[in-house]
Amino acid sequence: MRKLNVFEMNRISIDEFKKSKKNPLVVVLDNVRSMYNVGSVFRTADAFRIESIYLCGITSCPPHPEIHKTALGAEKAVEWKYYKEALEVVKTLQQQGYEVLAVEQVEGSTSLQDFAPAENKKYAIVLGNEVKGVCQEVVDNCDGCLEIPQFGTKHSLNVSTTAGIVMWEMTRYKLSPIK
Amino acid sequence: MRKLNVFEMNRISIDEFKKSKKNPLVVVLDNVRSMYNVGSVFRTADAFRIESIYLCGITSCPPHPEIHKTALGAEKAVEWKYYKEALEVVKTLQQQGYEVLAVEQVEGSTSLQDFAPAENKKYAIVLGNEVKGVCQEVVDNCDGCLEIPQFGTKHSLNVSTTAGIVMWEMTRYKLSPIK
Repeated sequence: MRKLNVFEMNRISIDEFKKSKKNPLVVVLDNVRSMYNVGSVFRTADAFRIESIYLCGITSCPPHPEIHKTALGAEKAVEWKYYKEALEVVKTLQQQGYEVLAVEQVEGSTSLQDFAPAENKKYAIVLGNEVKGVCQEVVDNCDGCLEIPQFGTKHSLNVSTTAGIVMWEMTRYKLSPIK
Repeated sequence: MRKLNVFEMNRISIDEFKKSKKNPLVVVLDNVRSMYNVGSVFRTADAFRIESIYLCGITSCPPHPEIHKTALGAEKAVEWKYYKEALEVVKTLQQQGYEVLAVEQVEGSTSLQDFAPAENKKYAIVLGNEVKGVCQEVVDNCDGCLEIPQFGTKHSLNVSTTAGIVMWEMTRYKLSPIK
């Protein structure tokens, strides 16, 4: 099984990315402290061609060397906006027809393996601070909660790993349209 | 949707973890440079209760403060071993009945959304260096290759995000037995 070289990977340019049909998914990062996590989310968002990242609260915005260190330039391709209040973002997205789902461990959450995104729906997922998660008021205003089931000693996945897993789940259902 | 507090999360102790039935999956990290990536893989491996992590080549081993920074103690729960040569690990795992799959972009790879793990099979996944990936000789000795399809400008997911996505895929098929 020969490894592909970089010219065989069908990578698209930043300009092609911006014009391309996107995966109808918005990722909201609220009060994410680590710029490495922010950069890593940009990199995954680029890979899965997602629509936009909304950065809220204390979450840092590009351009920044520490974001670049893990985004590796993906922060120039993926659309992003900054909003002070995640709560406002949630309400705005809902008005625009998005189903907004917090990724959090809550009573009555939907386990990720039981979640099947509807074909013609636009989704937004909200991820919160590394320690505190998504704040209760934001959770209360979301349309639902997704939870990655965990069976270990910690029950606290890294926020960029969590974002990667949920973005992948949202993407694998929709692979044909963005191929 | 009330957020769960830490006492409601059914976290198990390190001792309970060590005695528990594991997800029959081994993660092999070959020449992974960043200790943050190593720590993050430990944390995900803890969450999905995987069997073992094999650290090879230049990959650092616990205990180490930088691994701890992202593992947050998960490195004390998840079993691990160090081997100098990933190639030997691949062959040993195959002799022990594991199907060994490199996670890499190669000719004839299986796209992750097309992969369905067999119910009674033990799997090992091999992830490589942040820049160079899994080396060709190791790839050639694996039983197959899994590839996460990518549609962006980079085609280079972070190694701990990649590990997280593939561990999740392996886990969601087997959720009932480890619940």
